[in-house]
Amino acid sequence: MSESLELGAVQKEGIGRLRAMFGEKLSSAAAVLEQHSHDESHHAPASPDVVLFAESTEDVVNCVHVCRDYQIPVVPFGVGTSLEGHVQALRGGVSLDMSRMSRILRVSEEDMDCTVEAGVTRRQLADHLKPRGLFFPVDPGADATLGGMAATGASGTTTVRYGAMREVVLSLKVVLPNGEVIETARRARKTSAGYDLTRLFIGSEGTLGIVTELSLRLFGIPESTLTAIVQFDDLHAAISAVSHIIQLGVRVARIELLDRAAVSAVNKHSGLSLAPNHLLLFEFHGSPKSVTDDAEATLGVMTEFGGSDWESTTDQGERTRLWRARHDAAWAVRAAYPGGQLFITDVCVPISQLANTIEATHSDLAEHDLFGPIIGHVGDGNFHVVCVVPPNDSAELRKIQAFNERLITRALAVGGTCTGEHGIGLGKISHLHRELGESAVDVMRAIKSAIDPQNIMNPGKVTTNGR
Amino acid sequence: MSESLELGAVQKEGIGRLRAMFGEKLSSAAAVLEQHSHDESHHAPASPDVVLFAESTEDVVNCVHVCRDYQIPVVPFGVGTSLEGHVQALRGGVSLDMSRMSRILRVSEEDMDCTVEAGVTRRQLADHLKPRGLFFPVDPGADATLGGMAATGASGTTTVRYGAMREVVLSLKVVLPNGEVIETARRARKTSAGYDLTRLFIGSEGTLGIVTELSLRLFGIPESTLTAIVQFDDLHAAISAVSHIIQLGVRVARIELLDRAAVSAVNKHSGLSLAPNHLLLFEFHGSPKSVTDDAEATLGVMTEFGGSDWESTTDQGERTRLWRARHDAAWAVRAAYPGGQLFITDVCVPISQLANTIEATHSDLAEHDLFGPIIGHVGDGNFHVVCVVPPNDSAELRKIQAFNERLITRALAVGGTCTGEHGIGLGKISHLHRELGESAVDVMRAIKSAIDPQNIMNPGKVTTNGR
Repeated sequence: MSESLELGAVQKEGIGRLRAMFGEKLSSAAAVLEQHSHDESHHAPASPDVVLFAESTEDVVNCVHVCRDYQIPVVPFGVGTSLEGHVQALRGGVSLDMSRMSRILRVSEEDMDCTVEAGVTRRQLADHLKPRGLFFPVDPGADATLGGMAATGASGTTTVRYGAMREVVLSLKVVLPNGEVIETARRARKTSAGYDLTRLFIGSEGTLGIVTELSLRLFGIPESTLTAIVQFDDLHAAISAVSHIIQLGVRVARIELLDRAAVSAVNKHSGLSLAPNHLLLFEFHGSPKSVTDDAEATLGVMTEFGGSDWESTTDQGERTRLWRARHDAAWAVRAAYPGGQLFITDVCVPISQLANTIEATHSDLAEHDLFGPIIGHVGDGNFHVVCVVPPNDSAELRKIQAFNERLITRALAVGGTCTGEHGIGLGKISHLHRELGESAVDVMRAIKSAIDPQNIMNPGKVTTNGR
Repeated sequence: MSESLELGAVQKEGIGRLRAMFGEKLSSAAAVLEQHSHDESHHAPASPDVVLFAESTEDVVNCVHVCRDYQIPVVPFGVGTSLEGHVQALRGGVSLDMSRMSRILRVSEEDMDCTVEAGVTRRQLADHLKPRGLFFPVDPGADATLGGMAATGASGTTTVRYGAMREVVLSLKVVLPNGEVIETARRARKTSAGYDLTRLFIGSEGTLGIVTELSLRLFGIPESTLTAIVQFDDLHAAISAVSHIIQLGVRVARIELLDRAAVSAVNKHSGLSLAPNHLLLFEFHGSPKSVTDDAEATLGVMTEFGGSDWESTTDQGERTRLWRARHDAAWAVRAAYPGGQLFITDVCVPISQLANTIEATHSDLAEHDLFGPIIGHVGDGNFHVVCVVPPNDSAELRKIQAFNERLITRALAVGGTCTGEHGIGLGKISHLHRELGESAVDVMRAIKSAIDPQNIMNPGKVTTNGR
């Protein structure tokens, strides 16, 4: 099943050195290699030769020094929740598992920021911050590591209000391919000091270096949180209503769309009884007064655009149940095909183009007899089509791939991007070229070659780097 | 007065080619060269050999092709309002004046974005957007060009609410040092497609390429805008109050500090009669109800921390007068030394360190008998000390430089940055090294060399690039 290539004699010697250096922190047990050979996507697994469970930045530095000297690929691994084959060890080498680097190093309530190791997960951080009245907003759904979220430039349901990783990471500690350690910035709230290395490493998917620590902006847990749902018969009307809310500047913390197919899957999987209709799911953050005002303003617009059956709640249990259902939507879809593999595409278009793009996608799905519920962070113009590849069904896989091509072509044609938040990985390299053109990708390649001249950092991802 | 170096024979030939190519768009009139030899800082002027008034991206491409072939430096020039010697033509060559590229190419009310040429100025854009109910939030004070604001990573008074250029630029059109033209991104609201070239060029100060067009996020003009001022005897209390407002999550669009000395200068210059005290200046954006609520919440905190004489207004004329005075603060200070040259420093520290840092700065100013009013974007931890160098007073210049060194050392010691928003230019190269260390600056140099191997783009700025 694995596609990993045989390492040469030099690299094998290097692996021997790593073994001697790291002892039990290094594993080549079959189950461990298998676990580190894939993410949650449909992309074929590719196994590393060994997995190093790093426990400190020093471990990472020592590993990278050996890998540099022996030209061994290094592929960082968080918890493997990425969706474009980011962690596949295409050329073997070391999978650098960051999960043991899970210390929360510092929280400042006064500065509303913190510093964490790269293996800290989103929920772990939330639990740690909650008693301090703080939260970290970026929520891609999965309980990903913060390091992985930085590496893939994650965003998710709250981006419309709080921004993506790009906006809330203050600084990164990075081990470079030459083994040197840098901090990309101070933790001041803003800076104009030199090139923006923080943003360069965010979204670089492990191809330029290994993130070992992050300083993050935090926010105060809102005094009040209100969740609301509203139904639409007409998808176009639902999206026009969202667009109107954004134009009015109503403060919404989350605006999610589940189309009729997604609602149906979620009902079955999560035991809900939502009406079989297109659904918008809102969250408002603020004072009890302001969330009520914001919700009322939203309700007015929704009604005007034909929305019905508005329901709202500030009850924590009910809110959690709704958002859990939203987050489980992909699993709900997968449940339709036991043993199947998720194939979740991800495009983002200007919001003026969103309704037409989703409608064309619905037609395309129907025409090609594909099952693909749509869920979207519609306030940002970002949506996913959740497909499932049944076990060993390569014909269906090809059908979904062809659909994905058409979807991306459609998004690019209206000024959109081939990925709003999942990243390029190994799945979208050709689309990156289509999106930005050769000259722009050449700039990325020049940066890659300048920082990682031996191409040892997650080779074969983002840009092909001409090799 | 100019520090420009003599060009070699090859470059002179290239200048001849540019002359033939561009005719009257190219000037080497003494007054034009002088105007393009400096920004608004105290840094020594350095004259270009010629000034090209580009009228299109094609003009820029043609110019860069010649400059590449003949190794002629190219220094982009907006309106010359930068503050660290960004536009000085240290090695002669072409000053590429972008002011004729002032077309607003596209405004989308539905997508709340626009595309403009790099020479469009902030006020020009504001005037164009106003009848459409939209505005672009970044406000560095000066009526800078949008291209210059992107190149220097500008921010300013509204960053606390709307973000800096980094957050509101969707995409850039850039002419690379090899003459190729790229778009750094699509105009979708977010993307994870490859390395973040948009953010790489923001703040690169013309050293990696020439920005010729920008796509920008816009916001709806708030239904209501409320400006308020409050006075403090105790600077520490004023800043603690601001810190508390931020922690509470009160929505403030602007929070500016003028210390007692700045208030006094502004009173004289702008004919105001503000009490001779430390002043906080607020702006709130929202519905009439929400701005009143936000202002009330703020007033409560200010009173609790010892603020007095709260005054608020929604009157457009009064608001404009107050903000104009704030924006003119630097000129107000300069007026104290007729013919003097501004020396405005710029640091940003974690907000927990802001009060101590400003107080230490006050002591330092007093101890060294320096006049330096302080104005600050205190919600971000960013502040400026506005000094003036009297004409031909090199002793005073050295004194201010030594003060600036101490200030930056103090900011770096508490986790701050040597520049919150003015950039590195030629003035802060050594401080960039102190701030981020050699390994991080080496990464910047590697990027510079990879993208501009001949070092023709604004040479001698940001990183020394080893030459």
